Parts: sequence; structure tokens; C-alpha cells
Amino acid sequence: MAALKACNILITGANRGLGLEMVKQLAEMPCSNRQIFACSREPDSPKSEALRELTKKHPNIIKTICLDVTNPVSIKEAAKKVGALTGKTGLNLLVNNAGLAKLGSTQNTTAEDMLAVFNTNVMGPFSVTQEFLPYLQTAAKASGTPGLSCNKAAVINISSSLGSMTCFHEIYNIIQAFPYCVSKASLNMMTVLSAHDCKSDGILFAALHPGWVKTDMGGDQALIEAKESVAGMLHVMSTLTEKQTGVYLDYTGKTIPW
Amino acid sequence: MAALKACNILITGANRGLGLEMVKQLAEMPCSNRQIFACSREPDSPKSEALRELTKKHPNIIKTICLDVTNPVSIKEAAKKVGALTGKTGLNLLVNNAGLAKLGSTQNTTAEDMLAVFNTNVMGPFSVTQEFLPYLQTAAKASGTPGLSCNKAAVINISSSLGSMTCFHEIYNIIQAFPYCVSKASLNMMTVLSAHDCKSDGILFAALHPGWVKTDMGGDQALIEAKESVAGMLHVMSTLTEKQTGVYLDYTGKTIPW
Ligand SMILES: NC(=O)c1ccc[n+]([C@@H]2O[C@H](COP(=O)([O-])OP(=O)(O)OC[C@H]3O[C@@H](n4cnc5c(N)ncnc54)[C@H](OP(=O)(O)O)[C@@H]3O)[C@@H](O)[C@H]2O)c1
Ligand SMILES: NC(=O)c1ccc[n+]([C@@H]2O[C@H](COP(=O)([O-])OP(=O)(O)OC[C@H]3O[C@@H](n4cnc5c(N)ncnc54)[C@H](OP(=O)(O)O)[C@@H]3O)[C@@H](O)[C@H]2O)c1
Repeated sequence: MAALKACNILITGANRGLGLEMVKQLAEMPCSNRQIFACSREPDSPKSEALRELTKKHPNIIKTICLDVTNPVSIKEAAKKVGALTGKTGLNLLVNNAGLAKLGSTQNTTAEDMLAVFNTNVMGPFSVTQEFLPYLQTAAKASGTPGLSCNKAAVINISSSLGSMTCFHEIYNIIQAFPYCVSKASLNMMTVLSAHDCKSDGILFAALHPGWVKTDMGGDQALIEAKESVAGMLHVMSTLTEKQTGVYLDYTGKTIPW
Repeated sequence: MAALKACNILITGANRGLGLEMVKQLAEMPCSNRQIFACSREPDSPKSEALRELTKKHPNIIKTICLDVTNPVSIKEAAKKVGALTGKTGLNLLVNNAGLAKLGSTQNTTAEDMLAVFNTNVMGPFSVTQEFLPYLQTAAKASGTPGLSCNKAAVINISSSLGSMTCFHEIYNIIQAFPYCVSKASLNMMTVLSAHDCKSDGILFAALHPGWVKTDMGGDQALIEAKESVAGMLHVMSTLTEKQTGVYLDYTGKTIPW
């Protein structure tokens, strides 16, 4: 099984759920010179306690960064820090994982919920990606290798099968989440557009569906544990090549139809 | 060729471009008791002159309504007026046509443009649809016929092939419009979700791509005239049945892959 060798990795929403589990698995992998920028919008609050504990275990690998994906100033400050810490190596892998779900149907979704979910799930990845793009470009140039890969320079957008026009009903019939579905379809479109726009920069983009996972967001009804989901996604990431930039895959590597 | 028989029809962004042409063709069709609610956000301004002229020609058919799709108060006031004018017949057909395009790539799109396009192309149709839903439900009930159709109760979202994850590059390679593509993918997702949510209410939803059309938005490079695009879309609308709710078709009736 190929292991992800990306050196400098940033993960948003890393204080709990899938983001935290991803930091954990990446920190435990044998990989020299790895720096993981584990982002939380409130790194000092009780809700980031588990991340602080994990950081204590891997002080040379994990760096906690304050990052609220809906706050442009916060994004800029985080980028400056990461730019200084990565230098000429650049950022190899950005995982846009932070996300928000709101329930509702066509009939009863509020405009407020539409906007809140859009701000976190669409504007968040949009602004974070744009701000960190120079460091990803640096990593692509520094690699000196042809092709695209998550080891070289990549953005992984954590999407959902609820963002698929074809498959949404499989979960939507249980969890009616109109604003969330709309936001993840937008994220998917951003993924394909950025894959197109950034191919010549040497940066890979992909949208991954983690499965239905037991986290605060996924709830108790969910089908798999965060451990299984993250192990699957990390394996999928390690296999991606330039042929697959712009794909939409689940944590087992299966293509999801748009 | 089947003709659209919808009685009460509302079209947003009807003062120019495709919206204006649609009002014209619908007003000229032989159809008894038709009321067309031609919406403009500034019905008294010079930019609505052509609509005022057209209304003068068909004073019994066309009613001009002030409606800014980004303004909740404006939407509510328009809905009240239309509710009073349609009464027990309800609203048979809502065409979410008003739209805004902004150019840009992953690298240089501004957050301001993302938000402006989201507000007009996503929140606009979202809020307008929700506000007019009771009148569409009234029309569905009043029809007394089974199945779904644009003659009974329907929402047509004017989308674009630029909203297709599969086909966007055909035009995106000429017109790089990142925020626009993202917004139309969102609109497509709203179309399938609403088709799902409102089927039992008797309301059909579909997303139509008008082709690349010579309007202010489409520009001079565009391939077809508004007349051809609108004639095509009206024909396609007249053919839709319950089997097709949630489809994504172009103005010739061809399915566009998501
Ligand atoms: N769980 C599932 O079944 C499932 C399925 C499909 C897709 N996904 C996607 O997977 C990703 C992770 O989900 P999860 O299940 O781990 O969710 P979760 O347990 O609810 O965690 C969400 C994470 O996002 C962070 N976040 C939210 N808003 C933020 C903001 N403005 N700035 C920075 N961080 C923010 C949260 O931080 P705070 O603690 O500060 O709130 C938290 O760390 C999301 O994108 C989600 O849509 C999950
Ligand atoms: N032309 C094409 O090639 C093409 C291709 C694919 C899809 N489309 C879609 O077709 C639809 C019509 O496009 P078009 O070519 O006719 O564009 P257009 O000539 O630029 O006209 C746009 C219309 O939308 C109205 N509008 C914009 N913002 C509004 C708001 N906040 N409230 C109310 N009305 C608003 C405009 O009103 P004002 O005069 O007040 O600005 C105008 O009536 C759009 O949804 C567009 O995305 C067009």
C-alpha cells in the first residue's frame, strides 16, 4: 500500500472529527521532515483540547495554527505563518476539511442557513486555497518532478456524496440538508475549475467523500468510524496522479458521478 | 409542435435579454386568459423602456412587476401583488431568469464577485422560489390533473452549460467565469433537490441552458439569437412531464451531463 509522502501538510478544522483523525494518522506515519499545520479557529479553547494533547505527543511534527476559514484576516495571518515555516519547500498538501451542515428542505431552509453554509463550505475553501496558492506553487516548483501528485502539490476538498446531483438522495432521504447539498455541489465545481486552472502550475485538485462517518456532524446513525474513513482517504490521496486531477472519489477510491 | 399553455407565468429579469424575449414570445402566442408577470428591478428606468413598449402592445396580458431578486422585501412585495392577481388559479410557471456573470479564474476571482454572483444566481432563485411556492401549490391543486407539467405548476431555472462539471470547459476555455460556473452548479443542485422535495406538491422543476446567446451577457461572439434560444426553451418546457422533473436540458432538449 503506497503511503502519502507529502512533507508540508495543512488541514483546516483539525480540532475534532475527521480533521483531527487525519492529523493523528499523518503524524503517526513514518515520514521524515513532515510538518503538519493543524488548524483550528479556536486553538486555545476547550474544544481544541484533543488537538493540544496530540500536538504534545508529536511536538516536532504538528504545528497548531489559528485559522477561521470564514475570516479573511485570519486566513492571511495563518498563510504568513505557514509561509515562514515552509520557506523554499512550500506547501505540498492543503486539505480543505472544515465544514458546516445545516438541515432543511426547499420549503423550510432559511436564507441565514444558506449563507452560513455557503460562507464556511464554499467561500472558506475558495479563500483558503487562493491565499495558500503561492506556497503550493512553490512546492510544485521545488519538487523538480513532472506530473501531479499529493506528495508534490495538491488541494484536497472534503466534499460529500450529498453534493452529487446523481447520488444525493441516498442520504438526503434520511438527512434533508438542502443548504449543505448546494454548498458541496459548489465545492465540487470549484474543484474541477481549479484542477483546470492550476494544472500548468503543477497543482492537483480532487474532491473526496469521506463516507458517512461517526463524528459530531455525521451523528450516531453513521456507517463508519473516522479511523476507517481517514485511512481510506489518505490511501486514495497517495494514489492520485495527473490523470485524476479534478476527480470526485469516495474514501474507497470509487468515482462518484456528479 | 406542442405549445405552452401555462396561464399565469412569472419571469424575473424580464426587461432585457432572454427574459424580455420570453415575455414577447409568450405574449404573442394564442392562449386565452394568459397573465405574464414581467419582472424588472427597475421597471421605470430607461433600461426597462423596451419592456414598457411591449407592455403597451399587450396591456391585457403583460403586467410589469418590480422585483429585485437580491432584495427579500422586494420579493415579498412582488409575491403579494402576484398572489392578489392570480387568486385561486395560482401561479403556473415561474422562470428564474435574472442572472449575473462575473469573470475570473481560481487565481484572480475576488471574494466580492463570488458573493455578488451567489446572491443573484443562487440566493435569488432560492428566495424567489420559496416565496412563490404557495401560489405554485395553489396552481397545482387547482389544475385537478395528475402528473407534472409546465402548464400546471413548474419552476424553470435558467442555468448554463458553464454549470456542468463535465461540459464547462467548452465555453470556459473562451470565457473564464469561475464565480458564474460555481453559481450555476449550485442552481443545478437546487433544481434537483427542489424537484425531489416538491414532487408531492405537484410542482415540476427543471434547469435549462439557453445556448450561447447574443445578449448583453452572451456578447457578440455568441452563437445564436435570443429569438431562437427562447423559441427552443419554450418548446422544451411544453414537452416536460413528471418523468423529467429535475432534468438539465439545453434549448434543443438535449440532456446536459452534470
Ligand atoms: N461526518 C460525515 O459523515 C461527513 C460526510 C460527508 C462529508 N463530510 C465532510 O467532512 C468534513 C469534516 O466533517 P466532520 O464530520 O469532521 O465534522 P465535525 O465533526 O462537525 O467537525 C467540523 C470541523 O470543522 C471546523 N469548522 C467549522 N467551521 C469552521 C470555520 N469557520 N473555521 C475553521 N474551522 C471550522 C470545526 O471547528 P469548531 O470545533 O471550531 O466548530 C470542526 O473542526 C466536512 O467538510 C464535512 O462536510 C463529513
Ligand atoms: N446569454 C447567454 O449566452 C447565456 C448563456 C447561458 C445562460 N444564460 C442565463 O440566461 C439568463 C438571462 O441572461 P441574459 O443573457 O438575458 O443576460 P442579460 O442580458 O445580462 O440580462 C440579465 C437580466 O437579469 C436581470 N437582473 C440581474 N440582476 C438582477 C436582480 N438582482 N434582480 C432582478 N433582475 C436582475 C437584469 O436586469 P437589469 O437590467 O436591471 O440589470 C436583466 O434583465 C441568466 O440567468 C444567464 O445566466 C445566458
